[in-house]
Amino acid sequence: MTQTKVLLDESEIPTHWYNVVSDFPNPPAPPLGPDGQPIGPEALAPLFPMALIEQEVSVERWIKIPEEVREIYQMWRPSPLYRAHRLEKALGTPAKIFYKYEGISPAGSHKPNTAVAQAYYNRQSGINKLTTETGAGQWGCALALAGQMFGISVRVFMVKVSYDQKPFRRSMMQTWGADVFASPTDITNAGRSILADDPDSPGSLGIAISEAVEEAASRDDTNYALGSVLNHVLLHQTVIGQEAQKQFAKIGEYPDMIFAPCGGGSNFGGVAFPFFADNAAGKNVRLVAVEPSSCPTLTRGHYAYDFGDTLGMTPLLLQYTLGHDFIPPSIHAGGLRYHGDSALVSQMYKEGLIEAVAVPQIATFEAGITFARAEGIIPAPESNHAIRAVIDEALRCKESAEEKTLFFNLSGHGHFDMASYDMYFSGELVDYEYPEVEIERALHNLPKVAAG
Amino acid sequence: MTQTKVLLDESEIPTHWYNVVSDFPNPPAPPLGPDGQPIGPEALAPLFPMALIEQEVSVERWIKIPEEVREIYQMWRPSPLYRAHRLEKALGTPAKIFYKYEGISPAGSHKPNTAVAQAYYNRQSGINKLTTETGAGQWGCALALAGQMFGISVRVFMVKVSYDQKPFRRSMMQTWGADVFASPTDITNAGRSILADDPDSPGSLGIAISEAVEEAASRDDTNYALGSVLNHVLLHQTVIGQEAQKQFAKIGEYPDMIFAPCGGGSNFGGVAFPFFADNAAGKNVRLVAVEPSSCPTLTRGHYAYDFGDTLGMTPLLLQYTLGHDFIPPSIHAGGLRYHGDSALVSQMYKEGLIEAVAVPQIATFEAGITFARAEGIIPAPESNHAIRAVIDEALRCKESAEEKTLFFNLSGHGHFDMASYDMYFSGELVDYEYPEVEIERALHNLPKVAAG
Repeated sequence: MTQTKVLLDESEIPTHWYNVVSDFPNPPAPPLGPDGQPIGPEALAPLFPMALIEQEVSVERWIKIPEEVREIYQMWRPSPLYRAHRLEKALGTPAKIFYKYEGISPAGSHKPNTAVAQAYYNRQSGINKLTTETGAGQWGCALALAGQMFGISVRVFMVKVSYDQKPFRRSMMQTWGADVFASPTDITNAGRSILADDPDSPGSLGIAISEAVEEAASRDDTNYALGSVLNHVLLHQTVIGQEAQKQFAKIGEYPDMIFAPCGGGSNFGGVAFPFFADNAAGKNVRLVAVEPSSCPTLTRGHYAYDFGDTLGMTPLLLQYTLGHDFIPPSIHAGGLRYHGDSALVSQMYKEGLIEAVAVPQIATFEAGITFARAEGIIPAPESNHAIRAVIDEALRCKESAEEKTLFFNLSGHGHFDMASYDMYFSGELVDYEYPEVEIERALHNLPKVAAG
Repeated sequence: MTQTKVLLDESEIPTHWYNVVSDFPNPPAPPLGPDGQPIGPEALAPLFPMALIEQEVSVERWIKIPEEVREIYQMWRPSPLYRAHRLEKALGTPAKIFYKYEGISPAGSHKPNTAVAQAYYNRQSGINKLTTETGAGQWGCALALAGQMFGISVRVFMVKVSYDQKPFRRSMMQTWGADVFASPTDITNAGRSILADDPDSPGSLGIAISEAVEEAASRDDTNYALGSVLNHVLLHQTVIGQEAQKQFAKIGEYPDMIFAPCGGGSNFGGVAFPFFADNAAGKNVRLVAVEPSSCPTLTRGHYAYDFGDTLGMTPLLLQYTLGHDFIPPSIHAGGLRYHGDSALVSQMYKEGLIEAVAVPQIATFEAGITFARAEGIIPAPESNHAIRAVIDEALRCKESAEEKTLFFNLSGHGHFDMASYDMYFSGELVDYEYPEVEIERALHNLPKVAAG
């Protein structure tokens, strides 16, 4: 029989995370404080343990993964690499399509790769409470799971529109012992200020981050954990791409193009960064970040210093942004709704080291259903973005009779997103092109320090 | 690091299904027709393709798995065998606990093991439409998936109370292209007759089977598929136990006791039957079927000939039964609500070859949450029954300082059952002991032919 999955032994779980900064042609821009001056590690100490702050600014190429973290990784890692034989056949493409499936983690996505690491380092530093935000719920679930593994209690501020749309993500977090709040709440200053302006606010990731950061910053025993964007988060995700490299080597294949959904960048960074190392060593694999056209951060945003949250409580990072006051349209069904992007991914895009493409919502669900009917697995809406781009490329290969090898990260399953699939089936989903006037507006609303 | 998962290569997917009848000390009782006489294969021909009818009555020890079926199995098989290190530690037990995890199938349970086989043989015989019933939704999803893989359109009659409680199981079936109806419907005579008596009927598996069988029997191009109970269904599930045997052999372990949830018997048969072969060859592993105390078929039912469906459209099978007119209490949150049981499992229980235990509902959710907080994976409510029994045994081992090796089938994940977990968290779940008066009543309502 033809091989479908490439598996690795638990002993082949990577022993180190790969730090992409070590292969950057130019050093990353420093984070700035409210005064426009570069901040030191101490500015982050109220929120993060020192081990993570060190990783955030590290230029070391390899950072050792603690054994305690690798032991938890064993719950689901190494994840399988699939050859999408049936999808190729359904498309009639000469392209070879591979995907790494991260949905087998208990939380159903790639997010536990960093959640477990963050919980571990916080526990090591004596912290027993963590706050965080979650949008679609994948990250909140991952941190709830990780907190439970290390005896840390977790409070999750969940974007209200998702809290209402996805009650079972909340139940899942509760099963792992976390407390979950619909954000904006009335238990933080940040939440109350938003509700004062708009009592019916659907919330946003930026608002939920403000609430979680406020809670962590105001309590000594509490830290904050972020599910994407920051350097150390993307670092932890590089186990995905490293495993894929071993898996491709086992079957004598290598990708021509790699696709991943891109919101804050952890999904994309996780799968693409280790292959960027190959590029730095002479390979030439194209790395494509795929984002929604309703939140086109890389493809249409401004490259500027901006806050990570809506209320301006975080340091400023140089990034592609739609403005920290961005509120995503409620009609958008999946995740990937963050106004900004990882500084590392942003710099790579700015310098032409990676590519980006934006895809409309309905087409992503069409792609996800095509995938599910061929390969069985029902993908998360975020993952459908990568699948859309892969199918488009596979169909181009069909036109041009090219036998490219395409690889994407199937970052999660869609079991908690069936309401979005229902909207697609019932014709309720609409496409939404982010308006030019809002892009223009954002330019004027960027923090003034950005000009400095 | 300590090994957590025992994996197999795709080449180690079993090549044959194991037929437990070949090791029976006594031949199985024949199915009877409405006249009380044994029926021949032709009586089943309106519903099933001949290949499956032959498997139903086969006494061959090994039945070859078609390559086309093994290819689809590769989507998720072989499934991992886990050592539950963290659960053992949480319980403080000297027992070793292992589980086979079938929730990694695209449909989230063990059910596709037979759905794929049934879809294949139907397709081979020229059938392009299948009907079926589903309770909790696992089976309907599995057949929807399998139908999609072989180009068969699938109609699912879903027990109304589950249809309402689990809308996302319906969406999942639709994603794989199936049509789903809340049973009882007004599109079959069976459904209409039930609704005439009780317009608010919550439905039952027995009613849904009547509807699906009626549809299949009345159309030449349509067959029927059953997700449990029948011999060929349990046969297909034996890939689970066979893989587990290879996995235990790889690590030099062997179970003392095996636990599986038992509704219609496919879950239990799948994991336990191959080990029964070991017992027949001199081993002595205890095989324990775990059922809900609200539907205590094996532990309190009558061993008698009874129908498989509520309206009496199926042949009569000798089985443990609570009566074919059994309506499970709506307060019961999980699956395992079938009035009867596999004839094979029933005979083995009657002859003392296996054991059975009934557990109350709330205790199963407590066990599931203990498991999720230790091992990460959130189990299906059905699986929680096995987990309850395993934890009870592990705690007994703690008392007696016995280092038993316990093994159970984690038959599915609970991603579509979070509403039931919510009911547990909110204190809405209640325990329900099936009343003695109902057991007595059932005895009088058994088909008269049973006496003959």
